[in-house]
Amino acid sequence: MTEINRRKAILLALSAPLAAGEQAQMPQHKMPDTGNVHWMGDEQIAMLMYPGMTVMDLVGPHCMLGGLMGAKIFFVAKSLNPVTSDTGVTITPNATFETCPRDLTVLFTPGGTDGTLAAAVDAETRSFMADRGARAKYVTSVCSGSLILGAAGLLKGYKATSHWSVRHVLAGFGAIPTDARVVRDRNRITGAGVTAGLDFGLTMVAELRDRIYAECCQLMSEYDPNPPFNAGSLKTAPPEVKTPMVEMLVEFVRKSEALAAAKA
Amino acid sequence: MTEINRRKAILLALSAPLAAGEQAQMPQHKMPDTGNVHWMGDEQIAMLMYPGMTVMDLVGPHCMLGGLMGAKIFFVAKSLNPVTSDTGVTITPNATFETCPRDLTVLFTPGGTDGTLAAAVDAETRSFMADRGARAKYVTSVCSGSLILGAAGLLKGYKATSHWSVRHVLAGFGAIPTDARVVRDRNRITGAGVTAGLDFGLTMVAELRDRIYAECCQLMSEYDPNPPFNAGSLKTAPPEVKTPMVEMLVEFVRKSEALAAAKA
Repeated sequence: MTEINRRKAILLALSAPLAAGEQAQMPQHKMPDTGNVHWMGDEQIAMLMYPGMTVMDLVGPHCMLGGLMGAKIFFVAKSLNPVTSDTGVTITPNATFETCPRDLTVLFTPGGTDGTLAAAVDAETRSFMADRGARAKYVTSVCSGSLILGAAGLLKGYKATSHWSVRHVLAGFGAIPTDARVVRDRNRITGAGVTAGLDFGLTMVAELRDRIYAECCQLMSEYDPNPPFNAGSLKTAPPEVKTPMVEMLVEFVRKSEALAAAKA
Repeated sequence: MTEINRRKAILLALSAPLAAGEQAQMPQHKMPDTGNVHWMGDEQIAMLMYPGMTVMDLVGPHCMLGGLMGAKIFFVAKSLNPVTSDTGVTITPNATFETCPRDLTVLFTPGGTDGTLAAAVDAETRSFMADRGARAKYVTSVCSGSLILGAAGLLKGYKATSHWSVRHVLAGFGAIPTDARVVRDRNRITGAGVTAGLDFGLTMVAELRDRIYAECCQLMSEYDPNPPFNAGSLKTAPPEVKTPMVEMLVEFVRKSEALAAAKA
């Protein structure tokens, strides 16, 4: 690709947040004329939605994936009824387990707490994830979404990560718990807790397209993080933060361990 | 507050992502018994929604604000009809300009591109923002949401920031464009582009409660960012990323400047 075509491709690609998202919902949407640009993609990306999901787990990755020109993004749930997150954000799906394409480029699931455990034991959800996951080019998650992948039998023998509180639980599904912001093992790509979805999303864009494309997404979303505090991991959080948070999640961790034990 | 009460408060507070979000939608939801814990809040937070908003601008801050136990969060739009973002994410409001409380702790608006400019010139939206903004304890935005604040006359004489592409435009509304991830001037608190909403959200939680509470939110959301690339600002992005992104936004910048000129 010449430099001019490359730049044209970037321009078109990054003006596509609108197009990428709308295409799945409005197939009549006309994509801009791309001339002989070969940088267009045609990924089919399914993002699972379920009651009690953590909405940031979904929107963080989508913040980056939503800029993939030509990609179709499906928000998939049991029905087209709006789904309410653990913090009361209600999002409308645009595909169901039945209408979601059978052959996906990316299968993705967000995490949460009780809602995630409910989805992980739900026969329909597990069956959907196992079916699409068996053929998807990439099988992915952010946060405790990896518990759903594990429960669907999709992590056996794979390195994976999760929210810090339940990372160790993945071993119960035959996975190899791995402490990193984004963990890749062959076609399994998992992100750590909640906000790791941004780092996961950028990693996916670079994987699906290339580094320049991902960097364009990073600049557009001004992802130049500068947290006012440094308590985002167990390694850095002070004891007065860490201790109560660990205690607070004891019950969720116990339930997650029970889920993994039941599947073992 | 004793240390035990403090820890109890943290436990209760951080188990409240569910309660905080649901309360606004389900006023019958019973808050846990808090005994003599004085750490509960009663903030009324209004987050503006409009067609074409950037959903990450809304969900990033909400990722942190959603953990404020006792707070009520209102997703406010012109009607209760679902609102679709610039990338096709459809969210259901739970309040309208009429039903939103008149006296708010926090008034917030997300940004976007064309949708943001449309909201900024919309008489009803501007009137709502000017009215609530005149009495709100904090008047806030993330990304180009500050254009809406500016158009509503809420930034005159205040330091503020925006998405890097239109930060300079704020001067046209009488604001003092300021280059920082989160800018505070008296009760105006504005965040930079898109993902700055996480840093903004943590800043707000610390302001509304205290630092420990904010750090608990940071640990829960595992906000320990580790972007795989370093192209998130004009200062660090390589020319092959910066140049096309600047070019891509030329028309949006021109329209934003025209909006500010019309208001001046």
